[in-house]
Amino acid sequence: MNNLMRDVAIVGIGQTPVGELWDRSLRHLGHDAIMAAMQDAGIETADALFVGNMLSGELAGQQHLATLLADFVGLRGIEAAKIEAACASGAAALRVGMMAVASGMADVVIVAGVEKMTDTLPAETTAALATAGDQEYEVAEGATFLALNAMLMRRYMHEYSVPHAAFAPFPVNAHQNAAGNPNAMFPMAISDARYAKAPVVAPPINIMDSSPICDGAAAVVLVPAERAADYGLDKRTVRIAASASATDTLAIHDRREPLFLEAAYLSSHKAYAQAGLTPADIDLFELHDAFSIMSVLSLEACGFAARGQGIALGESGAITRDGKIPITTMGGLKARGHPVGATGLYQVVEVVQQLRGEAGPNQLPHPHIGMTQNIGGSGATIITHILVGQD
Amino acid sequence: MNNLMRDVAIVGIGQTPVGELWDRSLRHLGHDAIMAAMQDAGIETADALFVGNMLSGELAGQQHLATLLADFVGLRGIEAAKIEAACASGAAALRVGMMAVASGMADVVIVAGVEKMTDTLPAETTAALATAGDQEYEVAEGATFLALNAMLMRRYMHEYSVPHAAFAPFPVNAHQNAAGNPNAMFPMAISDARYAKAPVVAPPINIMDSSPICDGAAAVVLVPAERAADYGLDKRTVRIAASASATDTLAIHDRREPLFLEAAYLSSHKAYAQAGLTPADIDLFELHDAFSIMSVLSLEACGFAARGQGIALGESGAITRDGKIPITTMGGLKARGHPVGATGLYQVVEVVQQLRGEAGPNQLPHPHIGMTQNIGGSGATIITHILVGQD
Repeated sequence: MNNLMRDVAIVGIGQTPVGELWDRSLRHLGHDAIMAAMQDAGIETADALFVGNMLSGELAGQQHLATLLADFVGLRGIEAAKIEAACASGAAALRVGMMAVASGMADVVIVAGVEKMTDTLPAETTAALATAGDQEYEVAEGATFLALNAMLMRRYMHEYSVPHAAFAPFPVNAHQNAAGNPNAMFPMAISDARYAKAPVVAPPINIMDSSPICDGAAAVVLVPAERAADYGLDKRTVRIAASASATDTLAIHDRREPLFLEAAYLSSHKAYAQAGLTPADIDLFELHDAFSIMSVLSLEACGFAARGQGIALGESGAITRDGKIPITTMGGLKARGHPVGATGLYQVVEVVQQLRGEAGPNQLPHPHIGMTQNIGGSGATIITHILVGQD
Repeated sequence: MNNLMRDVAIVGIGQTPVGELWDRSLRHLGHDAIMAAMQDAGIETADALFVGNMLSGELAGQQHLATLLADFVGLRGIEAAKIEAACASGAAALRVGMMAVASGMADVVIVAGVEKMTDTLPAETTAALATAGDQEYEVAEGATFLALNAMLMRRYMHEYSVPHAAFAPFPVNAHQNAAGNPNAMFPMAISDARYAKAPVVAPPINIMDSSPICDGAAAVVLVPAERAADYGLDKRTVRIAASASATDTLAIHDRREPLFLEAAYLSSHKAYAQAGLTPADIDLFELHDAFSIMSVLSLEACGFAARGQGIALGESGAITRDGKIPITTMGGLKARGHPVGATGLYQVVEVVQQLRGEAGPNQLPHPHIGMTQNIGGSGATIITHILVGQD
């Protein structure tokens, strides 16, 4: 199980800025990220394109997106397919790309994540996002993802006697890091006081606890690790040391323990086993901070903090770029932005930037091992990747 | 290229009847097909579930479908993702399942195709299907798939001086075969006269040229070929000898030659090369007869007839169960039905039935090699599989 037939390396990365990109349509966003990744890898063609996307059908009236993009970037004829796993679509597409290379079915694969969420009314986008929940048992009752996360956050505050202010370190760290990322949607630091005074959107969640609705695209180029030296010649190679996906119920009320992300536990521990590593070996962790509460639950399930102690990890400063386990080093979902189907690829692109030493003002000193975790729904699909840089 | 690290076998198949299944919801349809396939393979768990589906978001308000189904069939925790390539979603999901097994990332994989199209108004379903076309250059002008195929059929009739009546053998053969398939939506033979008198829906396409809007689900279980003997013990093993996907422009007006399915040519000829076969070796061909014209264009692009000669192949009787190259042996998209994201899996399940000798009254005498071809859009994504039975 999970013994890859061929190791896989990332030899090219590309991304667009994240924001309300009204001058670029869905196909243009995909084009921009894919062309940047191809240029970074020094390739002019590929065997396949896999696209992570959640909402192109609902919000742009465009299914069949991967084939459309393959043609639009000049690769008419190659294999193409779209992969969907709600907000984990990006990492799910990366796994398919890895399988294509590792299986021998392809040698050069492009994986892109693309999402366009701001061309529709906010209420339409919110309703479309709710399709990640259980339609018959959650959404039909009026649940949005904001409401579901608000219930989780309130339960956590009750269970562990935590005040709302204790969550401040997560958005404060994300915004601090976004300030150094030219592609971030909100590149400005915020204070604890600003967090405390932020408008509440679904109590106890305030606007600083919530990632934004936005547009963006990111892409990577994958090749067999043994051929990585032939591509992206002036770049340090990044190897995918582990990749694992796990699932849970869509509906939160069906879970054994709503405050324990079982799929995060499963996928992270499978990934540790594949790479022969422990949480202590991870130099940075791009986690899925769609809401502040998700950062805390993810850190606990992945073994960086005991249950109920994720908050203390934030308060200790361990999550900052100077800390023991830096998270959201380029701004995370909160401040870089969360174009849902693209997020999993942004996380991977940012870890590659850090491992290559290309993270600009946000560069960590000599990171060697980076982890990403992409979450679909309120914890129903969770995908973990561990990337290892070259010395 | 395309040298699989591990060969892959199909050791379980399952399907639901196709029709207007108002008493089964999306999750129930998936459940029924998956449980049938698991029972057929004799398995109680799996490593991953990949689901081919096009329209669950638009028509049922349910994305994140694969994870929902994994939980609903009792496999909470396993990897799950949905694969979308318009009407080729089923075969695209099968390819991902193959990659998972061939790469060593999984040992036992379930691939299901699920679609529910009859719970919405026909106009809504038609609009949702149109998202497989180019939204900005075709759909915005009012094109539906019926309209696009009508243009292709009219052009073919003009180009090769073919009367409409010459297409009759395709729906007549499909309905003849559906009569022996208990899962078919329209299990009744039709005559040439009935074809000639059928109501026109978009000239020159009449209702007998068009596959129906319907619900259905089909599934297969994949394992490494070297372990196939451990599963489905009383069944004859079926090996996937070839799998290839190719793409073209979404918009028909961008193609070099609209009457030549370049992606069908590419994917079928890649598949022939992988399997070391030629069209003459194929004992049956489950092609994508969403419209009569598509059968003709597919037969020509795949080398069963010269260009402009697909019609003659139909008239010769070669496409019937007694002919040289039997097609749509269980009714095809026209008469078994076309629940879009499920179709690619129905085709594979039916070929497995034939290769195992389980096709009932429609059983071909000793078929050994079967081919399937699943088409997304009006020829934009085309995926070919070649399956080989045990002697």
